[in-house]
Amino acid sequence: MSSDYKALTLETLPERLSKIESITKKVGANYRNWSVSEIGDGNLNLVFIVTGDVGKIIIKQALPYVRLVGDSWPLTLERAFFEYNALVRQEERDPTRVPTIHFFDRSQGLIAMEYLESHKILRGKLILGEKVSGLSEALGKFCARTAFRGSDFFMKTEDKKADVSLFQKNVELMAITEGLIFTDPYFEAERNHNTAGLDKIIKILRNDVKMKANVQHMLRKFTSNCETMCHGDLHSGSIMCTETATRVIDPEFAFYGPLGFDIGMLISNYLMAFFSQPGHRKNEIELKEYQDWILEIIDKTVQVFYQEFKYLWKNERSGILYPKVLFEEQGHDSTEALNHVLRKTWKDAVTICGIEMHRRCLSLAHNADFEDITDLNFRAKLEARNLLAGRELILNASSLVDIKSVLKIAQTYNEKETF
Amino acid sequence: MSSDYKALTLETLPERLSKIESITKKVGANYRNWSVSEIGDGNLNLVFIVTGDVGKIIIKQALPYVRLVGDSWPLTLERAFFEYNALVRQEERDPTRVPTIHFFDRSQGLIAMEYLESHKILRGKLILGEKVSGLSEALGKFCARTAFRGSDFFMKTEDKKADVSLFQKNVELMAITEGLIFTDPYFEAERNHNTAGLDKIIKILRNDVKMKANVQHMLRKFTSNCETMCHGDLHSGSIMCTETATRVIDPEFAFYGPLGFDIGMLISNYLMAFFSQPGHRKNEIELKEYQDWILEIIDKTVQVFYQEFKYLWKNERSGILYPKVLFEEQGHDSTEALNHVLRKTWKDAVTICGIEMHRRCLSLAHNADFEDITDLNFRAKLEARNLLAGRELILNASSLVDIKSVLKIAQTYNEKETF
Repeated sequence: MSSDYKALTLETLPERLSKIESITKKVGANYRNWSVSEIGDGNLNLVFIVTGDVGKIIIKQALPYVRLVGDSWPLTLERAFFEYNALVRQEERDPTRVPTIHFFDRSQGLIAMEYLESHKILRGKLILGEKVSGLSEALGKFCARTAFRGSDFFMKTEDKKADVSLFQKNVELMAITEGLIFTDPYFEAERNHNTAGLDKIIKILRNDVKMKANVQHMLRKFTSNCETMCHGDLHSGSIMCTETATRVIDPEFAFYGPLGFDIGMLISNYLMAFFSQPGHRKNEIELKEYQDWILEIIDKTVQVFYQEFKYLWKNERSGILYPKVLFEEQGHDSTEALNHVLRKTWKDAVTICGIEMHRRCLSLAHNADFEDITDLNFRAKLEARNLLAGRELILNASSLVDIKSVLKIAQTYNEKETF
Repeated sequence: MSSDYKALTLETLPERLSKIESITKKVGANYRNWSVSEIGDGNLNLVFIVTGDVGKIIIKQALPYVRLVGDSWPLTLERAFFEYNALVRQEERDPTRVPTIHFFDRSQGLIAMEYLESHKILRGKLILGEKVSGLSEALGKFCARTAFRGSDFFMKTEDKKADVSLFQKNVELMAITEGLIFTDPYFEAERNHNTAGLDKIIKILRNDVKMKANVQHMLRKFTSNCETMCHGDLHSGSIMCTETATRVIDPEFAFYGPLGFDIGMLISNYLMAFFSQPGHRKNEIELKEYQDWILEIIDKTVQVFYQEFKYLWKNERSGILYPKVLFEEQGHDSTEALNHVLRKTWKDAVTICGIEMHRRCLSLAHNADFEDITDLNFRAKLEARNLLAGRELILNASSLVDIKSVLKIAQTYNEKETF
């Protein structure tokens, strides 16, 4: 930790930031008029809204430990540096999808950024049964554009290698994913916890050697396949929406990894929203209607992802991979090569999807979709559906060649009496 | 280039290196008694043998350009830094297989290292029909140990990521591989040259869209799958042998890449030695006997590679991947997971093998196995066999599940009248 690091408080924030012009320009020069509130509901950081005479901004500051756990789990402040770098790249690769940055201070682990007026966390909206128009379009494109434009399909390979070199240093955050997502759910890890009643299901998962091997094959790709810069944590808590607008936040877990990582994690979090709906909506018509909407969102997101990826392949393939001089310029079609890339990407996405469905019920960081259900027996029943569906995805990722077959599994398990 | 860099000459070397204690200790303090000869027959560097009152050493110095081409192709001196770092790691991972380092100077791109008394370049021995005992054992183990111990199977992942971060900076050398090996052979690249008479064969290769796609899938792995530290240039010119001893040199192309890269390139160079033999031995009995010996060497090398990799999986699996806590400690066998890893590794190796067979006849840097054959018609005929066999390997890598099936292809093409 830098020696001059000091966590901001509601009291100290205004004076400490009052001399930073890029901040006062957005909030107002008279810092004594600023009002500050702390809204960090994530697992890691301090997040303040600062309101002044001129406007509002967000101040996000890393703590030197994992907020969810406390100072017994130290964590590097450098995650703010990687978040900043990721935001800069995401802005380049899919303009206006992430918050505008006003200021960054590495030693304080501090980013000042755009306040997303009237946006709410998507996870909360999914729990409440609220719809967002344009959601699939926005996120399908975000996943495709950041995947393609952060890879050797598009970048100058020297720039891409420099980026890989940089992001390989985001070691501590990658270690969290490697441990909590890929490993802990499948053995008696200290930090695990789960809803009572799931023991039988957990036993099925831990006794499934083939499935565990598939998870580890995927971990191998997570840790070694530096194909593109992934957001790294693209769940519904990292997405903010109004009724018609969608933005992506919080890329501190950014790393260079598999092309299918972000879309896989996104689908996973939609599926958990889907499976948990019976805990939030008792009216059967409303329930069915909203669950169907979630499945539509997933279907459309994947369609947009493919469409955009194919568009970029055709129009922006300027990197060293599959160069046009070997294909189009010799009168040869590269579509079969593209389809191969997409098949591999999709298989990874389906596998990651299943793994994320497991860790959110078994490992350290659960999600509100299930946690907010107070009837624990009912919660366990819904989680069991989700866990077993996740297993199916991990086991059969090779044969689940499109999103329809994945959604069919979701629908089947949604009706299953698991115990 | 560092401002104080100066290429050594036969004349300036003794005085310039006379103050370096680790060098004078090996050669002798009285530098006026040193004799110096230049033996660099590679494509890139200056290589001197320095002999003094006490002993001999090798001085290898990078030139600021590609020696094979001249100063029209500038090349970073930093390759010596990566060679040095690779040698240090190879020594750790497979002790005594690489030369001992006596001294390293980054700004001069200079490494002083062990003189390998009575060793000769393996390629020359293969052309002369000389045998080496223990060859398969040495190189099978070298490939397995460096692959396993440089990966997340074995290393602490923070050390491995730091290494990936470092070696991603070996950009210029990786770019040579990306261009000369994976791309140039498959279009009319400026630096290409080939023996007259191969046009029909070249047309077959360039018109094979599926094969070209497979080559590009492999390039994607080369540039993104940072699984382990590869030597990066493990051909028979990077191996030195006596009748009974084998050493590995010249890892300046080192990079973190696919587990199967080195063994694939090695097999490829053996196969080119095999296909070129009729150009060097007219006595049919001798020819057959020596070709059979080469195939035996390949077969045994792969056996040793598998054996050693399996041994290390069982006994040294201490990294984050496939942790024992998920398998053995739950009473579960990890052999199927290991076999999956080996199948993928082998498929990559077969693909790389085929690609290397192409570029050595079509791209910039050819090899003496074929180049030393002065009858150009005959050379073209042998090269055609090699090129078409390479195509088979690239097209069918998935189904060529063991070395026997690869060797069968070699034997078939060795008897083929290609034109």
